[in-house]
Amino acid sequence: MKVARYAQNPIITAKDVKPSRPDFEVIYTMNCGVTRLDNDEVLLFLRVAEIAKCDDDSIAKVPYWCEEQKKLIVREFDRNDSAIDYSDSRFVRTPERTFLSSISHLRIARSKDGIHFEIEEAPAMFPCNEYEQYGIEDPRITKIDGTYWINYSACSAITGVTTCLASTKDWKDFTRHGVIFTPDNKDICIFPEKIDGKYYAFNRPASAEYETRDMWISESSDLIGWGNHRLAMKSRPGKWDETRVGCSAVPYLTDKGWLEIYHGSNRDDRYCLGSALFDKDKPWKVIARMDEELIKPETPYELNGFYGNVIFNCGALFEDGKAKIYYGAADTCVGYAEVELKDIFDALK
Amino acid sequence: MKVARYAQNPIITAKDVKPSRPDFEVIYTMNCGVTRLDNDEVLLFLRVAEIAKCDDDSIAKVPYWCEEQKKLIVREFDRNDSAIDYSDSRFVRTPERTFLSSISHLRIARSKDGIHFEIEEAPAMFPCNEYEQYGIEDPRITKIDGTYWINYSACSAITGVTTCLASTKDWKDFTRHGVIFTPDNKDICIFPEKIDGKYYAFNRPASAEYETRDMWISESSDLIGWGNHRLAMKSRPGKWDETRVGCSAVPYLTDKGWLEIYHGSNRDDRYCLGSALFDKDKPWKVIARMDEELIKPETPYELNGFYGNVIFNCGALFEDGKAKIYYGAADTCVGYAEVELKDIFDALK
Repeated sequence: MKVARYAQNPIITAKDVKPSRPDFEVIYTMNCGVTRLDNDEVLLFLRVAEIAKCDDDSIAKVPYWCEEQKKLIVREFDRNDSAIDYSDSRFVRTPERTFLSSISHLRIARSKDGIHFEIEEAPAMFPCNEYEQYGIEDPRITKIDGTYWINYSACSAITGVTTCLASTKDWKDFTRHGVIFTPDNKDICIFPEKIDGKYYAFNRPASAEYETRDMWISESSDLIGWGNHRLAMKSRPGKWDETRVGCSAVPYLTDKGWLEIYHGSNRDDRYCLGSALFDKDKPWKVIARMDEELIKPETPYELNGFYGNVIFNCGALFEDGKAKIYYGAADTCVGYAEVELKDIFDALK
Repeated sequence: MKVARYAQNPIITAKDVKPSRPDFEVIYTMNCGVTRLDNDEVLLFLRVAEIAKCDDDSIAKVPYWCEEQKKLIVREFDRNDSAIDYSDSRFVRTPERTFLSSISHLRIARSKDGIHFEIEEAPAMFPCNEYEQYGIEDPRITKIDGTYWINYSACSAITGVTTCLASTKDWKDFTRHGVIFTPDNKDICIFPEKIDGKYYAFNRPASAEYETRDMWISESSDLIGWGNHRLAMKSRPGKWDETRVGCSAVPYLTDKGWLEIYHGSNRDDRYCLGSALFDKDKPWKVIARMDEELIKPETPYELNGFYGNVIFNCGALFEDGKAKIYYGAADTCVGYAEVELKDIFDALK
């Protein structure tokens, strides 16, 4: 697959983003939803991860939302306490529970050329309830009749990993509509139009008992209540997407069907993007699927980072005969790449 | 708590149930939904578990729904194959995947006195699709406007543990309405009436990442699409319901609020029943909860069986000032017990 990465990738890194408060530090910014606004600007809704600054090597500071106190708190742990597991830098595992070492919020970035972005100084959406205890992540944007519907993963040791819905018309005021998928379910992409009178959304439930991580599709009459859940597309043993598959970009309607850019991982936890085509009228039916990866980690900023060997995507613009893909690279920064739609369709069988 | 178990418990055992086919054997019958019919009979919707009969000690036979062949098949495995794990009699674990050794279906039983049941000769609902590959389990019955809505757990290595919805008006013809909760989510109890224009259901999602197993509540406008999911009641560290809690009986409206009989387990996997009261108008709010168990395993048929030390419930009748509880004992048979509602309310704090 011919992939045209932007030569000066990554286009956004942690140092481009102002922390939400002086005692915090942005450690990475990555998976972002994308939409083109009416004024022709490209808007990214960035996932921004922060840690609490710490000058003392003997302590670990963990920021999280405290439901009892109704505010974000920073808790300190003794790094010399042998009962606490610090071996994975993403986690602080105490006998009581597992904490995340960072907390994510969502931030707006705007661009006239789709490459150079102006990032807002303050978060647009910040964790604020028990479902969002450990942060809000991986937003997808679906524009329907002038309203931008945003879904995002909410992480919490109290409630697990849920998907929540919010909406905005102006990217200033955001309305939260609660949890739309029970734990653990994330990677939701809401289709941009109704099909036969119903809304549809891809989603990726995780089965604790059977260890499945596949793409499902669900129906709704109002975007809030979702049902008639159906398995849509499974991981493929022995291939690059053998352990899990989930939707990434909001599906794009073509005359051949719904084009979906999805992500998959293999047993080495290498994340790549792929593509599949779903029936126009029966979107639960796969009608074609790329055999190989659409984009796989190859460059240094994709191979190395907070969690290396990862390309992850939450949105793309389908314009000018191209898929313009904004992607999280190595769970660390934002990359940009273009792929010709003709090449994607040639590879879809 | 004063619990009046029926003296001749268990009221139904495997030997009372005719196998669904001559080469099958019923090994247990347990968790059942319950409703009182218009003709005043008590109807139980029984979970019946069967294995494929096998005279040859060197092979294991595993029945399951095969989606490719669109029929139930019986697959044979070599008991001398060291690559296959037979250590837990509930499972046959091959390198390819985990199979269940038995398959469950749903069967109707009727009674005039609520104790002596006539069990139908054939299954009422039988696994018939990929979601139900390993069987259908643990039905709950909610009667709304003359229609009986039945939800049940569907088990599958392909799709995980989902909850499906079916309906019937006459207990002869059943209509399937698909999956209403994505994996893994079970122990759904649909409230018998709308509250402020919305249907409600308790449910128990399982988080693979954070290992939560708690009671949630969700809303619906049509019983098919469910949303605005909220955590309703958590397990309690150090108590009898410390590792998981899930709804059991369909909630019963009293003048004090919605009375719920739920199940919980501790770290030894001992399952008991408890009770909680939820706000009449805001059913996501717990207003009282019993400290101790409502019923705990004490008798030989509760302590010993296919999976001992278990009392599990899928429904109760609230009549004559009593909770008439039909429960699965030791995952093996059906027990019956009565508890005075006055005693339950006295224990609710």
